[in-house]
Amino acid sequence: MTAATDHAVFAAGDVTLQSGLVFPDMKLAYRTFGRLNPARDNAILYPTSFSAQHHDTQWLVARDGVLDPERYFVIIPNLFGNGLSSSPSNAPAALVDGRFPLVTYHDAVALQHRLLVEELGIDRLALVYGWSMGGMQAYHWAALYPEMVERAAVVCGSARCSPFNHVFLEGVKAALTADPAYRDGRFVSQPVAGMRAMGRVYAGWALSHDFYRQEAWRGLGFVSLEDFLARSWDGAFARRDANDLLAQIETWQAGDVSRCPQFGGDLPAALAAIRARILLMPGLTDSYFQVGDNEAERPLLVNARSVELSPIPSIYGHRAGNPIHIAADRAFLRHKIDALLAQ
Amino acid sequence: MTAATDHAVFAAGDVTLQSGLVFPDMKLAYRTFGRLNPARDNAILYPTSFSAQHHDTQWLVARDGVLDPERYFVIIPNLFGNGLSSSPSNAPAALVDGRFPLVTYHDAVALQHRLLVEELGIDRLALVYGWSMGGMQAYHWAALYPEMVERAAVVCGSARCSPFNHVFLEGVKAALTADPAYRDGRFVSQPVAGMRAMGRVYAGWALSHDFYRQEAWRGLGFVSLEDFLARSWDGAFARRDANDLLAQIETWQAGDVSRCPQFGGDLPAALAAIRARILLMPGLTDSYFQVGDNEAERPLLVNARSVELSPIPSIYGHRAGNPIHIAADRAFLRHKIDALLAQ
Repeated sequence: MTAATDHAVFAAGDVTLQSGLVFPDMKLAYRTFGRLNPARDNAILYPTSFSAQHHDTQWLVARDGVLDPERYFVIIPNLFGNGLSSSPSNAPAALVDGRFPLVTYHDAVALQHRLLVEELGIDRLALVYGWSMGGMQAYHWAALYPEMVERAAVVCGSARCSPFNHVFLEGVKAALTADPAYRDGRFVSQPVAGMRAMGRVYAGWALSHDFYRQEAWRGLGFVSLEDFLARSWDGAFARRDANDLLAQIETWQAGDVSRCPQFGGDLPAALAAIRARILLMPGLTDSYFQVGDNEAERPLLVNARSVELSPIPSIYGHRAGNPIHIAADRAFLRHKIDALLAQ
Repeated sequence: MTAATDHAVFAAGDVTLQSGLVFPDMKLAYRTFGRLNPARDNAILYPTSFSAQHHDTQWLVARDGVLDPERYFVIIPNLFGNGLSSSPSNAPAALVDGRFPLVTYHDAVALQHRLLVEELGIDRLALVYGWSMGGMQAYHWAALYPEMVERAAVVCGSARCSPFNHVFLEGVKAALTADPAYRDGRFVSQPVAGMRAMGRVYAGWALSHDFYRQEAWRGLGFVSLEDFLARSWDGAFARRDANDLLAQIETWQAGDVSRCPQFGGDLPAALAAIRARILLMPGLTDSYFQVGDNEAERPLLVNARSVELSPIPSIYGHRAGNPIHIAADRAFLRHKIDALLAQ
């Protein structure tokens, strides 16, 4: 960890991606909380979600929080494309101009594995916990390193990107790239109208019909629907580089735990490889990671030590899984994770 | 009806809108099918939906179709902003440059009423039938002219635009207006990227998770998901003028049957004014006009002669209500409308 930042960087060197392309000098930024115990069995991996950096997600790590750093050694690896780990915004110019390559979840998880083994001396994970794209990474961990993962909590995530989820993202992407700053396949400057459009499109997807009907934004400190859209969504993604956002959407859309030589696209085979205790927590009103996605996966988890499917009973849609401002959902998550860790 | 077109135009003269603004030389384009019987009691009004012209919706009017022109005199009034009736694309330049005014459903229905009474000699409607924005117009008809409307079929519509529906449209609008052709509040030329973005955003909203999971696009003649998005959605709205689309979205978002002096924003009062037989047919998997919207309205229809709420059991989302290519949904609609007309 350098003095100027709150995180460390694992320099992975030149990395051959799943696609065969060699990514030069690939970097994985991460932050840790708590201490690894002498038995080295209290590590929790907590990968990041779409557009998030560890700053955005670390609230979950707190004494009396969902992940307790007094008891656990929590590692947050920043997902590629988030602006801290290797991303279009910080990659060598040659990669950017020649298009930033697809970095799959398999690529991300492989680098995270190297971080744990080579850098942190960890060969067992008490838990992999992830929300949204983080949940998809948790699924990949459980299937690709079954001997290492004791538990996996997939919160508003799935083993692969469903077609509906793909279409949702096509809309987000088309809105962002309708901006004039998008030329020949990449942004030559930061878009303004495109960022706002992406935020407004997202607003309808991330929260539920009931959230809006009940005007639950009032409880979040907004005075009108337009105030909520303007202050909460119009600038929601503008803090990120637009090319970084596109890179992560590409990762998301390509997400499929079975899409690798080991499983050859056979989802049942990939899910049968999982031996961990699995906790699936979709949001009851999530529009794009739907409960039905997890319901379809459940019978395929034939070798998991245990499987629990507990939808979060919430009107907060996809946000139910990252309930920084939603006490009831936070309590639900904490209760479920406490129980999982006690097993 | 002129020789060059398949429709007639009702020239309404200068019309004072709900907003107080006078719309000069306002025009209502319409097409009729069948004949008014001597008793003048076989008229059906069938208003158009978002971005549609009568060409797009008249398939429903057919012998053995949902609306039978051998028995009924069917009138399709084109909604303002659709490019045939008064719209930004055909309005006097002064209106366009100074912003096309908000034309509410109340305005539209008032002009349709004049068309029926002044031009066609109709003072009773056996049925007002509408899908989507057409369904919203049907609701307005039933509440504003209760003595005239015997039956109303609201297909995937609601009495007012729900907040969730509003947010969906905010996304659509933001995607369209992210295009560089949008300047200072209007399009100075036809957008390309914005039209595509709007189509891709719409694709996720108009059809359901199950539609995409089951790859039901195969049954519609597409060979891949991308083929479906590209051929069915990227150009879906490009046949319309972009400023026209914005005008109709404004009508849609402002939609509220109670938003007039007569009802003063009191939705229960507006719905209590309805005396017709009401058939509510939301799509079971419709994302933006949700079943819950109609369920909330139902107990407020206290003076309706009868009320039936029959969700269309379909995976085709909002499209279930305009099932030109979906035989099962078409049969469902026809069966329900036959029964309603027999009452």
